[in-house]
Amino acid sequence: MTYRAPVADIAFTLKHGAGLSATLARGGELGADDVDAVLQEAGRFATDIIAPLNAIGDRHGTPFKNGEVTTPPGWKEAYRAWFMGGWNAVSAPVQWGGQGLPHAVNAACIEMWNSASMAFGIGPVLTMGAVEALAAYGAEDLKRAYLPKLASGEWMGTMQLTEPQAGSDVGALRTRAERAGDGSYRITGQKIFITYGEHDLTDNIIHFVLARLPDAPPGNKGISLFLVPKFLLNADGSLGKRNDARAHSIEHKMGIHASPTCTMVYGDQGGAIGYLVGEENRGLNVMFTMMNLARLAVGLQGVAIAERATQHALAYARERKQGRAAGSGAVSSAIIEHPDVKRMLLTMRALTRAARTICYATAGAIDSGDNGRASLLTPVAKAFSTDIGVEVASLGIQVHGGMGFIEETGAAQHYRDARIASIYEGTNGIQAVDLVMRKLPLSGGETVRSYIGELRGTVQAVQAANDPAFGATGARLLDAVECLERATTWLLGKIESEPQAALAGATPYLRLFGNAAGGCMLADEALAALRLAEGEPAARIGIARFFAENIAAQASGLERAVTEGADSVNGADAALAG
Amino acid sequence: MTYRAPVADIAFTLKHGAGLSATLARGGELGADDVDAVLQEAGRFATDIIAPLNAIGDRHGTPFKNGEVTTPPGWKEAYRAWFMGGWNAVSAPVQWGGQGLPHAVNAACIEMWNSASMAFGIGPVLTMGAVEALAAYGAEDLKRAYLPKLASGEWMGTMQLTEPQAGSDVGALRTRAERAGDGSYRITGQKIFITYGEHDLTDNIIHFVLARLPDAPPGNKGISLFLVPKFLLNADGSLGKRNDARAHSIEHKMGIHASPTCTMVYGDQGGAIGYLVGEENRGLNVMFTMMNLARLAVGLQGVAIAERATQHALAYARERKQGRAAGSGAVSSAIIEHPDVKRMLLTMRALTRAARTICYATAGAIDSGDNGRASLLTPVAKAFSTDIGVEVASLGIQVHGGMGFIEETGAAQHYRDARIASIYEGTNGIQAVDLVMRKLPLSGGETVRSYIGELRGTVQAVQAANDPAFGATGARLLDAVECLERATTWLLGKIESEPQAALAGATPYLRLFGNAAGGCMLADEALAALRLAEGEPAARIGIARFFAENIAAQASGLERAVTEGADSVNGADAALAG
Repeated sequence: MTYRAPVADIAFTLKHGAGLSATLARGGELGADDVDAVLQEAGRFATDIIAPLNAIGDRHGTPFKNGEVTTPPGWKEAYRAWFMGGWNAVSAPVQWGGQGLPHAVNAACIEMWNSASMAFGIGPVLTMGAVEALAAYGAEDLKRAYLPKLASGEWMGTMQLTEPQAGSDVGALRTRAERAGDGSYRITGQKIFITYGEHDLTDNIIHFVLARLPDAPPGNKGISLFLVPKFLLNADGSLGKRNDARAHSIEHKMGIHASPTCTMVYGDQGGAIGYLVGEENRGLNVMFTMMNLARLAVGLQGVAIAERATQHALAYARERKQGRAAGSGAVSSAIIEHPDVKRMLLTMRALTRAARTICYATAGAIDSGDNGRASLLTPVAKAFSTDIGVEVASLGIQVHGGMGFIEETGAAQHYRDARIASIYEGTNGIQAVDLVMRKLPLSGGETVRSYIGELRGTVQAVQAANDPAFGATGARLLDAVECLERATTWLLGKIESEPQAALAGATPYLRLFGNAAGGCMLADEALAALRLAEGEPAARIGIARFFAENIAAQASGLERAVTEGADSVNGADAALAG
Repeated sequence: MTYRAPVADIAFTLKHGAGLSATLARGGELGADDVDAVLQEAGRFATDIIAPLNAIGDRHGTPFKNGEVTTPPGWKEAYRAWFMGGWNAVSAPVQWGGQGLPHAVNAACIEMWNSASMAFGIGPVLTMGAVEALAAYGAEDLKRAYLPKLASGEWMGTMQLTEPQAGSDVGALRTRAERAGDGSYRITGQKIFITYGEHDLTDNIIHFVLARLPDAPPGNKGISLFLVPKFLLNADGSLGKRNDARAHSIEHKMGIHASPTCTMVYGDQGGAIGYLVGEENRGLNVMFTMMNLARLAVGLQGVAIAERATQHALAYARERKQGRAAGSGAVSSAIIEHPDVKRMLLTMRALTRAARTICYATAGAIDSGDNGRASLLTPVAKAFSTDIGVEVASLGIQVHGGMGFIEETGAAQHYRDARIASIYEGTNGIQAVDLVMRKLPLSGGETVRSYIGELRGTVQAVQAANDPAFGATGARLLDAVECLERATTWLLGKIESEPQAALAGATPYLRLFGNAAGGCMLADEALAALRLAEGEPAARIGIARFFAENIAAQASGLERAVTEGADSVNGADAALAG
């Protein structure tokens, strides 16, 4: 079973879930047909060229020898075809050779690359982030030298924060940068967990490295960002000397085997030459530009792997015959006919679609310049989507029964691959803390309150539609939104006065947020489909209803965990002793 | 990080959660000290001898060549020491060389073997099931020939149901058995997914194979069970001719790499010699003896892997420093001090302990001859425990952050290993269907109602204790038990009239059952600890409270999914099209 890009669903969600139809209606050069054409082509490329490499990548991994990484058979050719097709540059600035399309369209493409292969898709995500950061903060000569080839994808970028003692706590990093006197810097230190830190896909690799100047203040406010190319450039832009930046080893991981995860060493031979991006000691600000995009992209990986696992399981459930479904005349029924299997498949599809809409809507908020909304939704997009990515991949195994545990089937690879996305680019716990401690207080709470107000609008629309096909959708979504509102108010009251209590509820709050928002978004799309008589209204109502009655229905338990569970967390030291 | 058997907690749970203290109080040969001594020794063996083999087993797997399986280095010696120590025979009948100890004590031991290594622990589970079945149903001469060496573990047993077209639907199997005229049978056919179907741990392997006689009725009522030894026995009991039963290949699995999963071929050279166990065409009854024990044992695997993952994550969280916890004076805090990490660890510990008690209580019901209770709890023990095994192993990875995804850390192995337990010995969906369709109706619903009545008793006891340390435990458990009761009543009303509706709610119902029962059991143990001033009362209250306020609190959402979600499942064909 391979992957087939669900282009029609993606296009519908983009237009009616991520607000792209409003953007298109405002006019401008981009038409709905253009978007459809881009999605069609991206879907074809993902399906035909990338997807077949996924299992090959898992089996081969990326052998490491003498400091060099060999990517799996076929990967180099596929990457070349991919960037030559313009896919790295979908939303890159036109000025630097990009297509300047909306981030939402690129988000849809990122989903498809990652459904086809997470290990393939994660590399470009970092390049795209590097392009954004460099375009926004880089000095003019640095941009001229590096941006065109990064934007096109002819060179790939990396994002280097983590060190052994500095994971979630970036401020603890120790890599040093010294001023060389000629405007450049000399970098020494070690970075770990560097995705695509070394590989043979491109002639040059441009590292974006966080480091600390000798006179930098401690902590987050003493971090600077440097562009450190693998090969230095000659005056004419051609590749010059090898820089003093090397991969020391690669990790042996549970999944995404074809994505080389490197330990990088800088300055073994005196110091790697690096160029400052942005201002000294303000590197984290620049890195956040990369990181926010990367977080959304990792959320899209969650959607992507969930979509692929769902397709895989659906195909198996339609084909595999076992037992006789109640009321069936057949000797043996396809397992999709058994209600318990149906429940699993519906859970998979409903969670996937909810996460997709949340992610696309986040990209849509970026496109419309609604920074508050984008900031609010980014941690939800990242954590909710990657959590459900794991859940859906696990259900995918379950639908396969014993076959799911056999590697040849492929369901296990999705499950192994999916697991990293809840961890990298800020663990989902960090996302939840970010949501509660930094995003809820935005504009004095107005950002989140106005969002919840919109969700209420959807609930009212469902209730007003008064369509029996929606079942209890309106009632369950109302419950969920009210639970979310109460939990939000409770948290806003604790952030200053009792931060420990707010922190203890962060993870269930984020899930509650995702369930309420996702449920409303699915209902919204169902109403749009009904109104427009397109996008399979019956199917969308069915998904929205299933989500509301079975998933959004968890809201009150999650609210309680937030507002009532904190003492049991913070007072439980005895329970964790021994 | 290796495993340390939590003997004190296990002993406390056995006595106060599984009713062993009542058994011991009734007198008899077995004293509390004897039980403690057995558990101590088992804990030592699991910790010292088996646990170090776990990672070795994962790396080496079980190479297959010319029909033979080689177990990983050290496994043969460990298995020999294990059965020589009497561990296979803990609850085997005294008549056949067993120790005749309660099943609950053996359950505790099984947990420890499997925490040490799931791939090691699963083999003996099948031998023990074979011993039960043969002791209960075998002809006298068959017992004399095979039971002593199966009971001791000198020979291992296998359990062979599955065929390519007959997985969950055992009745569809096609392996044939023909009467040989001399009282024996000739078996021909193929079995798949046979755990320890071939290996080098023991000189002989005794296969218990389901097959169909030429004149058998179709379906479940035409299945017979045969004992098929790898090596036939000479008249003096010594090993004779190789039987016509061979492993054809082994599977390449995501986890439990050291447990060889074989495709078996019978009758390549004319037919394997087999001996009937029980009556012709009544093989499923006999197999159910093996299967019920195996289901409980697989539930214990869920507990086991959850326990090991929890220990692993706790050790890491105490050691790893990152960020500064609010209110801490340190420059950087151990991550266990961060509330979100604490929540993960508490979830792990609370789910593990709840599942442990459910499993031990199931074994306790077997020991006390309460067949209704044992039947009711078996699917819950199997499915709830293995589901939480996966969840806890996943949280274990999350606590480790990026390190969790690196294979060397070991957290990933738990996650990979854990996943099979939700599938084999009847998928968890099959367990949920069994609970709803076959177990709820036992004694006209009285079995489940009286159990819920007991849970209510616990709730009342918590409320009567009126100890503020319990927080909202009483209120949340009351909610949970009432949700369970309403969902039970609803299901009992649907099983006959609308089986599709009952089936659609089976999985959330089982989880609701596990949450309510587990929550009450933890509270019960906390009350016992308080009463007896032993077993760390403060820790137990903390765990019980956390479970009630954060996990049992999900009850209303689960109740809704059962009683309100069925239409959205059964009417959602459009949503699963395309």
